Amino acid sequence: MRVSELVERSGVPLATIKFYLREGVLMPGEATSATQSRYGEQHVQRLALIKALAGAGLPIHKIRAIVRLVDEPGDDLYATLGRAVAMLPPYPDGERDADGDYPRARRVLERLGQVYDPDFPAVAQLERALKAVEEVGIPMTDQRVDAYGRHIMGIARMELDLMPADSAAAVEYAVLGTAVYEPVIAAMRRVAYQDIASRIFLRDMPETRKDI
Amino acid sequence: MRVSELVERSGVPLATIKFYLREGVLMPGEATSATQSRYGEQHVQRLALIKALAGAGLPIHKIRAIVRLVDEPGDDLYATLGRAVAMLPPYPDGERDADGDYPRARRVLERLGQVYDPDFPAVAQLERALKAVEEVGIPMTDQRVDAYGRHIMGIARMELDLMPADSAAAVEYAVLGTAVYEPVIAAMRRVAYQDIASRIFLRDMPETRKDI
Repeated sequence: MRVSELVERSGVPLATIKFYLREGVLMPGEATSATQSRYGEQHVQRLALIKALAGAGLPIHKIRAIVRLVDEPGDDLYATLGRAVAMLPPYPDGERDADGDYPRARRVLERLGQVYDPDFPAVAQLERALKAVEEVGIPMTDQRVDAYGRHIMGIARMELDLMPADSAAAVEYAVLGTAVYEPVIAAMRRVAYQDIASRIFLRDMPETRKDI
Repeated sequence: MRVSELVERSGVPLATIKFYLREGVLMPGEATSATQSRYGEQHVQRLALIKALAGAGLPIHKIRAIVRLVDEPGDDLYATLGRAVAMLPPYPDGERDADGDYPRARRVLERLGQVYDPDFPAVAQLERALKAVEEVGIPMTDQRVDAYGRHIMGIARMELDLMPADSAAAVEYAVLGTAVYEPVIAAMRRVAYQDIASRIFLRDMPETRKDI
C-alpha cells in the first residue's frame, strides 16, 4: 500500500509517520521509486504498537528500546520480557533502605513466596505504593497481602496462559497487555465497588439501573 | 499544638497550610489570640487526607468537594460513597454510543451480572480502557471477563469488608483506599508476572534472587 493508505489504515498522520521513520521505530517501506515506498501489514501492526505505547505516555527512546526487543527478542525470552515491561511507566526513583533493599515490598513478596528481582522497576514501584498506603493509614495488613496476592496471581496466571508462543509476539503481548489492561482492572475495581456497595446499602437495584 | 508543630507533624509547609485554610479544605484552628490559633489531631488527620489527594493529582476544587462529603456524609451513604470516589481521576470524557450507552462496558458488566450506574465515571473509564485493548489486538474475551471479574470482585469484597462503620471514616476510606491501592495492585501484577514467567522459563530462581 502507499503511504496515504497507511495513514488511513493506522489513523496516524503523515507527519507523525515520517517522524517514526526518521526515529527508526517504524521500519522503512520497500522503495518503488526515488520518492515513493510501498508498505505492508507489518507497518500497520507496528504503528498500532507505537500508537499504544505513545498513548501510554512513553517517550520516543523507550518506544525505540521496546521495538528493538520485539524485533530481536534474543534467546533469553525471560530476560527480554522483563526488560520490555520495565520500559513502561511509572519510572520510580529508588527508595531503597540503607541495605539497598525495599523493606515493604520484600515483606509482601516473601509472605507470598514470590520470586522477584529487586532491580526490576516494579519492585521499587510496589515499595512506593506501599509507603503511600501506610501514610494514609490504610496499611497493607497480612489479611490484605493474602487476598491481593491470591487474586492478582490468578489474574497474572490467566494473562500469561494466553501469551503467544512466538517470541516477538510474546514481547509485544507482555508490553501491550501490561499497558492496556492496567486501566481495565482499575476501572473494573471501581465499578465492582458500586455493585458490592449496592448490595450492602440497598435492597433493590439503584434507580438508574432500571433503564439500562 | 501551634501551627509550627502542625507543620512538623504533617510534613506540609506553612505556606501550603495557609493556602488550605484560605481554600476552606482545612478547618480553622481555635483562635488563642489575634494572631495565633491552636490545632489538634483532626488537623493532622485532615492534612494527611489532603496530602494524599493532592499527591494523586486532584485539583483543589475536587479536594474541597471530597472534604465536604467527609464532613457531611448525609443519610444516603451509598450515594455519598459513589460521589466521593467519582471525584478521583481519571476524568474520562464520555464515549457513549448513539443510544447514550457504553457498549463494551455494558457487555462486560452484564456478563458478570453486576449492578452499575452508567453515569458513574468508572463506567466511562472502563469503556475507554476496553476500546484501547481492542485497538491493540488483545481483546477482552469472555474467558478474560470471567477471570478478571472473579478476581476483581474478590478484591473489592475484601476491601469493602474492611470499611469502617462510621460514615465520615467510610467516605475517607473509600476515597483513599481507591486512590492508594490502585498503584499497589498494578505493581503487584507486574511483579507477579516475573514470578510466573520465571516458573515458565527457568528451572531455578534468577541469579539476583540469591542475595536477597
